[in-house]
Amino acid sequence: MPASVLHNPHPAVRTLDAAAFDYKGYGWRHVTVALDEFGVLLLTLNRPERHNAYTNEMCHDIVFALELADADPRVKAVVMTGAGKSYCAGADLAGGFGASDPNLSLNQHRDGGGQASGAVLRCRKLVVAAVNGNAVGVGITMILPADLRLVSKDAKVGLPFTKRGITLEGMSAYILPRLVGHANALEIAMTGDVYPATSPKWAQLWNQVLPAEEVLPTALALARRLAQENSVVSMALNKQLLWRTPDTPEATHLLDSKCIYETSRGDAQEGIKSFMEKRKAQFPGTMKDLERFGFYPWWTQPDVEGTKTRGLAKL
Amino acid sequence: MPASVLHNPHPAVRTLDAAAFDYKGYGWRHVTVALDEFGVLLLTLNRPERHNAYTNEMCHDIVFALELADADPRVKAVVMTGAGKSYCAGADLAGGFGASDPNLSLNQHRDGGGQASGAVLRCRKLVVAAVNGNAVGVGITMILPADLRLVSKDAKVGLPFTKRGITLEGMSAYILPRLVGHANALEIAMTGDVYPATSPKWAQLWNQVLPAEEVLPTALALARRLAQENSVVSMALNKQLLWRTPDTPEATHLLDSKCIYETSRGDAQEGIKSFMEKRKAQFPGTMKDLERFGFYPWWTQPDVEGTKTRGLAKL
Amino acid sequence: MPASVLHNPHPAVRTLDAAAFDYKGYGWRHVTVALDEFGVLLLTLNRPERHNAYTNEMCHDIVFALELADADPRVKAVVMTGAGKSYCAGADLAGGFGASDPNLSLNQHRDGGGQASGAVLRCRKLVVAAVNGNAVGVGITMILPADLRLVSKDAKVGLPFTKRGITLEGMSAYILPRLVGHANALEIAMTGDVYPATSPKWAQLWNQVLPAEEVLPTALALARRLAQENSVVSMALNKQLLWRTPDTPEATHLLDSKCIYETSRGDAQEGIKSFMEKRKAQFPGTMKDLERFGFYPWWTQPDVEGTKTRGLAKL
Repeated sequence: MPASVLHNPHPAVRTLDAAAFDYKGYGWRHVTVALDEFGVLLLTLNRPERHNAYTNEMCHDIVFALELADADPRVKAVVMTGAGKSYCAGADLAGGFGASDPNLSLNQHRDGGGQASGAVLRCRKLVVAAVNGNAVGVGITMILPADLRLVSKDAKVGLPFTKRGITLEGMSAYILPRLVGHANALEIAMTGDVYPATSPKWAQLWNQVLPAEEVLPTALALARRLAQENSVVSMALNKQLLWRTPDTPEATHLLDSKCIYETSRGDAQEGIKSFMEKRKAQFPGTMKDLERFGFYPWWTQPDVEGTKTRGLAKL
Repeated sequence: MPASVLHNPHPAVRTLDAAAFDYKGYGWRHVTVALDEFGVLLLTLNRPERHNAYTNEMCHDIVFALELADADPRVKAVVMTGAGKSYCAGADLAGGFGASDPNLSLNQHRDGGGQASGAVLRCRKLVVAAVNGNAVGVGITMILPADLRLVSKDAKVGLPFTKRGITLEGMSAYILPRLVGHANALEIAMTGDVYPATSPKWAQLWNQVLPAEEVLPTALALARRLAQENSVVSMALNKQLLWRTPDTPEATHLLDSKCIYETSRGDAQEGIKSFMEKRKAQFPGTMKDLERFGFYPWWTQPDVEGTKTRGLAKL
Repeated sequence: MPASVLHNPHPAVRTLDAAAFDYKGYGWRHVTVALDEFGVLLLTLNRPERHNAYTNEMCHDIVFALELADADPRVKAVVMTGAGKSYCAGADLAGGFGASDPNLSLNQHRDGGGQASGAVLRCRKLVVAAVNGNAVGVGITMILPADLRLVSKDAKVGLPFTKRGITLEGMSAYILPRLVGHANALEIAMTGDVYPATSPKWAQLWNQVLPAEEVLPTALALARRLAQENSVVSMALNKQLLWRTPDTPEATHLLDSKCIYETSRGDAQEGIKSFMEKRKAQFPGTMKDLERFGFYPWWTQPDVEGTKTRGLAKL
């Protein structure tokens, strides 16, 4: 199964018991996955000898791990990083582009990078990218939908699609300009050049720029702090409010009024109480709250399932 | 009447003679309002002993004052500031969230912060925020739709919604990412942390960062200068062109062509003449020009009136 | 024919043989045009004695030159600059605004600046703006849809529309906030002030800020390098992916999957081969590739032809 028709590579996630899943015991191929006692799932791209170049197997593993994180109430946040000195050197071109599979038609292909990006975007838990080293092509696009991005000050970054004869992939045409502005997005996309992560063109992308060895520890500490201090319901709603925003300010007012209405009856009870008592909150909310909110989800999205993937569960 | 059903708290503004309104003589509760000889209306949040924490009364007063400013031809610009050392410490949680009123249904609640934000957005006169000190929660979201924002270099700012168990309110999910980019908006919204106003994450929000004591005088001087030098018709149209932008560049071309067509027959006559004569312009235009333009307003917006507010004039 | 009804000033471009067009031999009026051996078309605004103030003739010449560049397979990139010390001082007000032609109705007028902006936006070849000096009004709005913008560190820039009694024109209400953010766009648009190009309010607009004498040589060198190194098909698709983006991330995934599918069968073949052979690519693709892609163009756009221009070819 080429990357191009991967979509929901493990429909079992829809029926398995995510809350009891044994992350250590699963046969991950091109990533490693570990859940800590703070509810932070660490997802490590694991082909260090190939600078973590992106493969069909890695695509599968990333999507599966993020679906588990989304469904598993033990998980409050995810940190993504790379083994070794690089984060991800881009698509492993040794296998060519999956899209050139002669058995595929135009409407059947689903870009492999977009499957990882989509999984990051859909995941209702906080996602922090710890970009420990060089990140190129899909190594960048997969982390654009993350909530927070930390990077090594020595990393080199780029989207060299114009130099390979392809185009912006992985939803990046939608997400990149919203993160760095259209002017920087155009420069990055048109030149295809490689930049130091410290370039001003990329500055808005990074929440923190750090020495390489501090990237992962800082990301883990941040994810643990937010998982403990903040309402996971509030974080999940805020992420979708920012990416699934209604078309007008007034429509947003109508929607956020509903969010305030429902959360006022949930985690906000503890939020106000803890504030009045001058202590940190212990929020009881879970993703089940979202599911009982009468207005959630408020957006519709196109079916991204390919013809060849009919019969697999829809993401 | 809880903040949650405030909407158009003073329907009289639709029938009263705004041009003759006595700002000094009105019974403002949690703000003060003064109109100067330059056409600048100064709106001061006035609960300094509570750091200007936001109440139902303040919501009412802000919306009413901004509606008057919109309707009153004497007013050319508005400056918003706070009494004392803070701008606004956020919602006054002593009263809980209005949304938890047990008599409200999901579709009836209208967020109090969004009512102030909506009034700032609708106001056709220039709105300058003079953020003289700390601004948190609704203290920030209410000034996101302002045209210009000046801030004290010592202010602390934040949107601590994830730490209280609620969500982005006051239309901020729509407006904040457009002002500071999605990457900064996500960090601010997900962490809920408090930042110094000088943080690079917030930099794009501020037109000027100043010593605290210079914030209000600079804002007033700026508002007076623009009220004198610039066409109020041009400013009103530019604000709406930027927030009520058509869906495509070409549709924007069709719309701005109509704006140029109509203004060429109005204030532009004086604009060209004064330019040729190398003097400052004295523009005759008023909001009545907008109302006779055949294409205005070009946008439609959802009805934000709540079930409980039927019968009040629509905003 | 006033600027206001210019639209497709030279329908002949639809039938003439662009690939054999003699740029030197054509009767350009307010620009000069030259095609070099690297496939870079240099378009120079040429009224230096009037600081290249914008006229009907200049509008015509810019649109015609960009249509030729779009259609001519010899052209891989365009560089726009100004003769003398200024880039463009704005509309030549000596002739008034074309929109005030008494024979025009509201629905007939098409803003002259928007015709140049539209031509820059539609051009499928890389467009680099070399802003060699002061750029005001339409001098700025015409280059907002360019792919890259280099500017002189000594240039003064501004959109003084509120000081002339008109509004944001040339699609700038759509494009400017996407380039510099809504906060900076509001300041620039509401104040109408003139700024140094080095102002932080304008920083995101510029890919490079350079000494005046280096602006054009650097722009030419950049355009030549990208024309040689990069796939023109990839660049054309990336530009449209960024400006004609679908409404959701998922819809963008479906679209970019199609882009990857088709380019994988085109320039990407050479892209992968050259990468494996560690040499620079020599891409064979042309605009004809776009035209055979089953999904191109994926967007629809409003007809911007005016009533008075019926019968001219649509752009």
